[in-house]
Amino acid sequence: METELSRQLGIEHAIFGFTPFPAVAAAISRAGGLGVLGAVRYTAPDDLKRDLDWMQEHTDGRPYGVDVVMPAKKVEGVTEADVEAMIPEEHRRFVTDTLARHGVPELADGEASGWRITGWMEQVARNQLDVAFDYPVALLAGALGSPPADVVARAHDHGALVAALAGSAKHARRHAEAGIDVVVAQGYEAGGHTGDIASMVLTPEVVDAVAPVPVLAAGGIGSGEQIAAGLALGAQGVWLGSLWLTTTEASLGSRALTGKLLAAGSGDTVRSRALTGKPARQLRTAWTDAWDDPAGPGTLPMPLQGLLVAEAVSRIQRYEVEPLLGTPVGQIVGRMNSERGVREVFDDLTRGFERAVDRINRIAGRSAS
Amino acid sequence: METELSRQLGIEHAIFGFTPFPAVAAAISRAGGLGVLGAVRYTAPDDLKRDLDWMQEHTDGRPYGVDVVMPAKKVEGVTEADVEAMIPEEHRRFVTDTLARHGVPELADGEASGWRITGWMEQVARNQLDVAFDYPVALLAGALGSPPADVVARAHDHGALVAALAGSAKHARRHAEAGIDVVVAQGYEAGGHTGDIASMVLTPEVVDAVAPVPVLAAGGIGSGEQIAAGLALGAQGVWLGSLWLTTTEASLGSRALTGKLLAAGSGDTVRSRALTGKPARQLRTAWTDAWDDPAGPGTLPMPLQGLLVAEAVSRIQRYEVEPLLGTPVGQIVGRMNSERGVREVFDDLTRGFERAVDRINRIAGRSAS
Repeated sequence: METELSRQLGIEHAIFGFTPFPAVAAAISRAGGLGVLGAVRYTAPDDLKRDLDWMQEHTDGRPYGVDVVMPAKKVEGVTEADVEAMIPEEHRRFVTDTLARHGVPELADGEASGWRITGWMEQVARNQLDVAFDYPVALLAGALGSPPADVVARAHDHGALVAALAGSAKHARRHAEAGIDVVVAQGYEAGGHTGDIASMVLTPEVVDAVAPVPVLAAGGIGSGEQIAAGLALGAQGVWLGSLWLTTTEASLGSRALTGKLLAAGSGDTVRSRALTGKPARQLRTAWTDAWDDPAGPGTLPMPLQGLLVAEAVSRIQRYEVEPLLGTPVGQIVGRMNSERGVREVFDDLTRGFERAVDRINRIAGRSAS
Repeated sequence: METELSRQLGIEHAIFGFTPFPAVAAAISRAGGLGVLGAVRYTAPDDLKRDLDWMQEHTDGRPYGVDVVMPAKKVEGVTEADVEAMIPEEHRRFVTDTLARHGVPELADGEASGWRITGWMEQVARNQLDVAFDYPVALLAGALGSPPADVVARAHDHGALVAALAGSAKHARRHAEAGIDVVVAQGYEAGGHTGDIASMVLTPEVVDAVAPVPVLAAGGIGSGEQIAAGLALGAQGVWLGSLWLTTTEASLGSRALTGKLLAAGSGDTVRSRALTGKPARQLRTAWTDAWDDPAGPGTLPMPLQGLLVAEAVSRIQRYEVEPLLGTPVGQIVGRMNSERGVREVFDDLTRGFERAVDRINRIAGRSAS
């Protein structure tokens, strides 16, 4: 499965795997795709350094990428405490009450809240970049706005391509004007932050909007048939995130959450502002229902919502409070019904792709070749 | 573009075109697809008979289909007047006020309301079937619930295949159990009544759920590349509705509406209950905004909403009150940017499909054949 972009990156298959887990990212690169490590959760530079050292040792010299969430708008001199102070008392009370109603225990004294929004503040992202550029990163990816010009220049000096996610043609055009090298067209059905336009419509629209900049199709892709569909729509590769969450190399840290993912159907996700303040697709839970309930206080804008719920989300995960337990994931969750190794999942993708090509050729009346 | 299903129906290309306009349906069949005439607006059997006579003369002996909206639940002895009586005064006032605010004139005395929901009541649907079965209809299609057993049996006796729309695997399985022959998997991005699952995820899910019953991919398909994607996902054909609305053979009856469709982007539709009481994708207008506004009275359940707004919709269309003027249409409206004949549109689809197959083969490293 080769495109101009996959050849440029020196990977065997035009499959890009986004994941917060180094073991998953490394396995994707070893299998012949491009593993992209999500750095947002690394608030301490040393933790990222340790995991990139590990990646470096476990990718057999294959290329890999890093995803850093870089806020496009710089707000000078604003600290986390300033942002905390903007959260209304009513919303804090709503968090406390909702957790109490479901009997969620407090964290033990001194136990840190694992999930923090701070990775989305500019200084944290810049620290992550400083670390990442000590490694031979082949792709620097990012969501939420076009990367700043100095970051694009630095990545190019480093020999890395820059990719940015977009949920609309307009958004994609802005990225292209910012000098990025790859647009990830993130359809409505994708996990995490998404717009309202489904992949079937969004992918070719973005391809046309930014040509000749290459596009990756993202959203709704978890089989070789779906990869063939994304490539038929004009993409030069596919970007998969959700599918890896139930691989044996993933460390979700909660058997209950893995169980919920394996059991969920395609209709069990919701596009909700509950997690970050911007619409992000995730498992539908009693937690998202509470925030999306018109009778409640509703969500706050980014970054307030993320800061508001950070500790609550950590407690829900720590104590595996099932009705509230969720994670960003796409509609493809309906196909994630068994725990398998990354290599097996990856080989299924490439085999399914070949089958889909055979089928399309039969329909088109082309002889087998 | 041949599949088992297209061969069974004796059509050249596995492209199914749904349209309320006989001239469009006939042109699709002549071009080598299957034109399917939507019968819902024919409340008088003689009108349907006249248009099917015309179709019969203008399809050059090629097969065509008819789409009848058949309510699955039969409510004995309920008249339109009974249903009218269930509409709250508050909602009637909201219609009057919204129309007045936009200066929508009254219909002239004796001028009939063109758009009626009555085609969705069982007796009307059965009258339409009685007419349709006087013609060599090759496919009987329907939305909203599985067709009743006697209708399926009658269609089969007539030599017609029966197709039903589904927005979820569960819904599709129910259709298959009802003995239908084709499931139309209607994705989130489609025009008209839709569920929440996007085509990229829905199509293969429905294919797996009802195999070996053939599936048509619907929603987001308006180019040959999108047809290739739908077929790669396992469909045996594609079902296109929106794309024909801006063909020269269509008679929308409003230049202003055609202009709005040509100008709209993929983000200018909304899934709203404003038209029928069930979520249906349509152009976003001041009319849908009014119904979707949490400050308003909200919509009524089907069939009340359709009955409530029928005359209002007729007045908006008759007087072309632009801010309120809309129609069911899918996200593909972003690609409908010129008025062209059906034949030209159709040939573009088949050429685009061949290009997409070439591209996929290059990516798969298959030699040209």
